[in-house]
Amino acid sequence: MISKLVNAIKEKNAPIVVGLDPQLKFIPQQILDKWYKELGYTLDAVAEAFFEFNKGIIDSTYELIPAVKPQVAMYEQYGIPGIIAYKKTIDYAHEKGLVVIGDIKRGDIGSTSESYAIGHIGSVTIGENNIKPFDEDIVTVNPYLGSDGVNPFIDVCNKEDKGIFVLVKTSNPSSGEFQDREIDGRPLYEIVAEKVVEWGNTSMDGDYSNVGAVVGATYPEMGVILRKLMPKTYILVPGYGAQGASGKDLKGYFNEDGLGAIVNSSRGIIAAYKNEKYSRFGDEGFAEAARTATVDMINDIRENCF
Amino acid sequence: MISKLVNAIKEKNAPIVVGLDPQLKFIPQQILDKWYKELGYTLDAVAEAFFEFNKGIIDSTYELIPAVKPQVAMYEQYGIPGIIAYKKTIDYAHEKGLVVIGDIKRGDIGSTSESYAIGHIGSVTIGENNIKPFDEDIVTVNPYLGSDGVNPFIDVCNKEDKGIFVLVKTSNPSSGEFQDREIDGRPLYEIVAEKVVEWGNTSMDGDYSNVGAVVGATYPEMGVILRKLMPKTYILVPGYGAQGASGKDLKGYFNEDGLGAIVNSSRGIIAAYKNEKYSRFGDEGFAEAARTATVDMINDIRENCF
Repeated sequence: MISKLVNAIKEKNAPIVVGLDPQLKFIPQQILDKWYKELGYTLDAVAEAFFEFNKGIIDSTYELIPAVKPQVAMYEQYGIPGIIAYKKTIDYAHEKGLVVIGDIKRGDIGSTSESYAIGHIGSVTIGENNIKPFDEDIVTVNPYLGSDGVNPFIDVCNKEDKGIFVLVKTSNPSSGEFQDREIDGRPLYEIVAEKVVEWGNTSMDGDYSNVGAVVGATYPEMGVILRKLMPKTYILVPGYGAQGASGKDLKGYFNEDGLGAIVNSSRGIIAAYKNEKYSRFGDEGFAEAARTATVDMINDIRENCF
Repeated sequence: MISKLVNAIKEKNAPIVVGLDPQLKFIPQQILDKWYKELGYTLDAVAEAFFEFNKGIIDSTYELIPAVKPQVAMYEQYGIPGIIAYKKTIDYAHEKGLVVIGDIKRGDIGSTSESYAIGHIGSVTIGENNIKPFDEDIVTVNPYLGSDGVNPFIDVCNKEDKGIFVLVKTSNPSSGEFQDREIDGRPLYEIVAEKVVEWGNTSMDGDYSNVGAVVGATYPEMGVILRKLMPKTYILVPGYGAQGASGKDLKGYFNEDGLGAIVNSSRGIIAAYKNEKYSRFGDEGFAEAARTATVDMINDIRENCF
């Protein structure tokens, strides 16, 4: 799978991913009103509004980008209708030829991790039928439970040509509480990074591994260290834009081949029309604003990282 | 919420929780056949079979136990129909007066963790409506992202009188890969435990905190240490039965008041009829077998822990 993502990044010349993380406050009022009128003040109305919004963003950006990353929490917040909108978003992104990174941060033990892996990137066999329940291409995984929790995902990656990104150093302010604590003189995130390399060696796909890592854009000095520690690991970089990082912080996340990292922006793209810089587009132009913000982000990274 | 759980434990005199973790191989053939006949080899058929199976287990055990713990991964594996069965299981357990611990092991940052918290133990406001999307009473939470990831859950606990159990030391063989690594001479799980105490102080409910901890039954010597380190923290103890632990391993997880821990068994109860010890019940008697295994587990813990 990672080679498919790498090819898409090269083809679009854009190492970025758009985070489809809808929140009520990001959805233009005319879309909400339309669905409230049709379905009342219900979970179903919000779910339909989320999907219509996502479709608008995807339609206006898919030619520019290799991948989207829906954050399942935003959908799960609205219960089963929300999760239906998550699944419809995955399917619609696939129709448009995009790689779908499900930001699910799952992680459990043994057969439980296996269930998550099968449900999201694998397939279940029921009688004579083989069904892919969610069908993301890549998902994010939490490593706290160790190899027992991660290996079932890798088994599915190898069987079905899929990928994972394992949390190594997250972008949030308190990520250091545990991740930065020193073990034998080295921070925990480096210990996790070494495990990612070890796990990754069991699922190589071209020059890179199907086992990638999440390293936040908000810690560029750690990005440089982790880049060197995990030379064949693709890095998913959250934290660009709304969380404070910009292109000049990101050079160190890339390898010399210009590959090795894919940078996510969520709010900065999908809610661009709420930003003064793009306010000329108005509510009705939310998708156009997202497209323009995407072009600006790609240019920022091209200019500062290569 | 923790006081509600404590009261239920006292009332039933049973510090146990039944893990509702359905897998195809645990479901009696007659239930599967019935639903395959009605709905074909589909996700919907499996979901209906899971729910019928769970209803049987709940009906035969609810008088004996304070709580159930559905593991969402098992349902998520079967996509949206599976998650509908998860929700129906929550609602049915509530009808029977049980506390529902959703084993979801979610954890993310800021607004994303908030979305998980609201979706599972909180409520969303849509126009004039206030809706509880999943409505578990307590959920499990992964601490790897630090306070940013956990505090949004605690905020919802305080607002809606709910609870969480934070992963501290998990029951699986490789849990030590990161959790046991030493930081300033102490294992990571102790550092996490100290944070659990700190977080817990912000959400006390009677003698215990709404912020509990997960500590696996398979590491009893660590259980003793963690019990002392977290005196007001309720401990959810997985790993009993199928994972190898029994009542004699568990005394150290309880406080001197006979409270402070709740022990989970999943396969050992729900698939008891597949165990030679209870095979006399046969496939048709799966629920009766579960009831008998529940009684045996309660007696084992009463005899060995108090």
